[in-house]
Amino acid sequence: TMTAALLEQYRERIRTELDRVVDFWLKYSHDKEQSGFFNCLGKDGKVYDELKYVWLQGRQVWMYSRLYRTMERFHRPEILDAAKSGAAFLQKFARVQASSGPGKCAFCLTRDGRAVKVQRTIFSECFYVMAMDELSRITQDKEMQADAESMMDRLIFWVQTDSSDLGRPQLPGDPPINSMAVPMMLLCLVDQLTEGRTDVAEKYKDLSGWCVEQILQHIQRDGKAILENVTLNGKELPGCQGRLQNPGHALEAGWFLLQYALKKEDAQLQKTAVDKFMEIPFHTGWDKQHGGLFYFLDVDGHCPTQLEWNMKLWWPHCEALIAYLMAYSHSREPLLLDRFKQIYDYTFSHFSDEEHGEWFGYLSRKGEVVLDFKGGSFKGFFHVPRCLYMCEKLLDGLLERQDS
Amino acid sequence: TMTAALLEQYRERIRTELDRVVDFWLKYSHDKEQSGFFNCLGKDGKVYDELKYVWLQGRQVWMYSRLYRTMERFHRPEILDAAKSGAAFLQKFARVQASSGPGKCAFCLTRDGRAVKVQRTIFSECFYVMAMDELSRITQDKEMQADAESMMDRLIFWVQTDSSDLGRPQLPGDPPINSMAVPMMLLCLVDQLTEGRTDVAEKYKDLSGWCVEQILQHIQRDGKAILENVTLNGKELPGCQGRLQNPGHALEAGWFLLQYALKKEDAQLQKTAVDKFMEIPFHTGWDKQHGGLFYFLDVDGHCPTQLEWNMKLWWPHCEALIAYLMAYSHSREPLLLDRFKQIYDYTFSHFSDEEHGEWFGYLSRKGEVVLDFKGGSFKGFFHVPRCLYMCEKLLDGLLERQDS
Repeated sequence: TMTAALLEQYRERIRTELDRVVDFWLKYSHDKEQSGFFNCLGKDGKVYDELKYVWLQGRQVWMYSRLYRTMERFHRPEILDAAKSGAAFLQKFARVQASSGPGKCAFCLTRDGRAVKVQRTIFSECFYVMAMDELSRITQDKEMQADAESMMDRLIFWVQTDSSDLGRPQLPGDPPINSMAVPMMLLCLVDQLTEGRTDVAEKYKDLSGWCVEQILQHIQRDGKAILENVTLNGKELPGCQGRLQNPGHALEAGWFLLQYALKKEDAQLQKTAVDKFMEIPFHTGWDKQHGGLFYFLDVDGHCPTQLEWNMKLWWPHCEALIAYLMAYSHSREPLLLDRFKQIYDYTFSHFSDEEHGEWFGYLSRKGEVVLDFKGGSFKGFFHVPRCLYMCEKLLDGLLERQDS
Repeated sequence: TMTAALLEQYRERIRTELDRVVDFWLKYSHDKEQSGFFNCLGKDGKVYDELKYVWLQGRQVWMYSRLYRTMERFHRPEILDAAKSGAAFLQKFARVQASSGPGKCAFCLTRDGRAVKVQRTIFSECFYVMAMDELSRITQDKEMQADAESMMDRLIFWVQTDSSDLGRPQLPGDPPINSMAVPMMLLCLVDQLTEGRTDVAEKYKDLSGWCVEQILQHIQRDGKAILENVTLNGKELPGCQGRLQNPGHALEAGWFLLQYALKKEDAQLQKTAVDKFMEIPFHTGWDKQHGGLFYFLDVDGHCPTQLEWNMKLWWPHCEALIAYLMAYSHSREPLLLDRFKQIYDYTFSHFSDEEHGEWFGYLSRKGEVVLDFKGGSFKGFFHVPRCLYMCEKLLDGLLERQDS
């Protein structure tokens, strides 16, 4: 059929692209002297800064391990060795001994592992958990698995019970809020930790329900908007913070939710994931004039205050590709394949670098490359390969079913 | 002469512009119910967020007071009243009682004065000092003057003796550095506090020398570059942080230095201020393709990692106008007037909003307005009116001497 031919064409391109992206990081990012990964790679792969970002170290360990474990052509010793080296670097250096509480990880390290910066958030720890859990599934390293789980339990304590170890001063004008990133991230971690383990799934059953509930609180304005920040009981916050929309984040939450709902066979939640977390950000986030997804928008049409609001970043497009293909894969609704196609065309024609491999991360509103590095403090071996990996798997599934 | 006619033309436009800018803030920014100033004003002056930023509250008090004290047409009760209201708001609410040390001021407050955010830097306190000192010169309020001076002494203690009250964890990979902003800001404060006061000048004599020395350490690469961050003993730092150039900041440091050097009658330092802190950032910072000054650059030509690096911001242009006009005013070197003219033409044709008054703050590389608000978390009643005020004064001086 026409559709099968199209899907086959996508799979071919995506598979080639994934190979190129993996090769790029294998070739340029490994610190063979001090272990761990260089994150700051120029357009041609050259290291322009030696800092090592803990989010990105953890994500790279996770991605290598996942590829090694679940895709035959990446089941190669060099990939496993790289994951192990990154994990050892993290276990040795990521935790900081400063005034911050036990288990707090740095955000950024020097090449030789000294802490440069600590964020007052949970995300370094989240990617630490993802890395250790995924790698321990290959090595059967029980201690590493326990390390992941104990960090996870600490994270849950910070989020649900007492955040004072994070080091944020409690200020009277800054009450705790429900920021989309936190329940999304925890839902992603629960999915990671529970795969194939019924005992762990039982342990985190309440947590995943809580995450879903927290994510759904971001549906606002009579179901017509997804807002990035809401109050703890799901009301709109005042000012710019309350009006902020982040289409890429909503789309990422969308596929996290859909994945969870499919596993739970919850048809209502599946519908919510698609109708709210995929359709709304498409309609609000797509730039009808120049194409691509905006980074930030204000729900009332004010100008966002983030200087980069109208830039086109690689990762929202990665998340959108996964979201629409997953949704299409489940429902076979042609409109969802159209969405995928539209994002795909923009993404592959604008972000992918034919010359040196990998993707550019930061385009102007009009689609010109304005920051030309391949790796930086927030761009590592993660969104691009995860997107390509997920899409390839989804396309495999679609084409298999088509054949049979 | 031709030049006199040109200068007169500049003065006319600048005077009109200053009047419009003052009118804009008088009309839209005053919180008549809870005192203090609204900072977040849309293009038409409407408040789009009620948060009150301490830097900007302090700067607005300072600017109103300075205009009231030194320019006859602004010696109006409504301007003094506004300054007093802002100062009272700051004295009542700016200091936070949190774990941070005594005297630490918030970065951001709710409309009714509750702390929202505290930065681990000295700048909220710096603008508090500027505000209180300038207003106390009008009101002869000795207590307010003492408040300014005691905050200043605390600042100096944080910078020169012990910064632990700022709340930054000491991390092994993050040794203290010499960041341009700190000695610049302190030099500016010394200039503020010592005007017309020989006893205070005597007290801060060593400090101003120290500031100058610290600023001059940013001249790097055999005198060919001004770098934003250096080590405490004036060496280049590794990585992106070390290679960062901020042309607007260098230009601002330039006129601070020149002003100091003129007062001291230090001809060598006057020459350094112009040759290094004005000529270098012009040559490196001016965008030869689209005009305007870049926000950030990497001295080795790597892509800066700041997403906004190629945007054109209002404040570097404001600082450049002051710098070149001050330098020209002193030396009558035609090249410096050409520099002023080039910046002036770009600035007045791109930033000034004919429709609603005040200036836009954030343009794309190509000069299109990409954030259209007039006030935001870092843009208040400060850089634009200070620039217009300084330029009008300098032009008055130039034209007066021309006449005689």
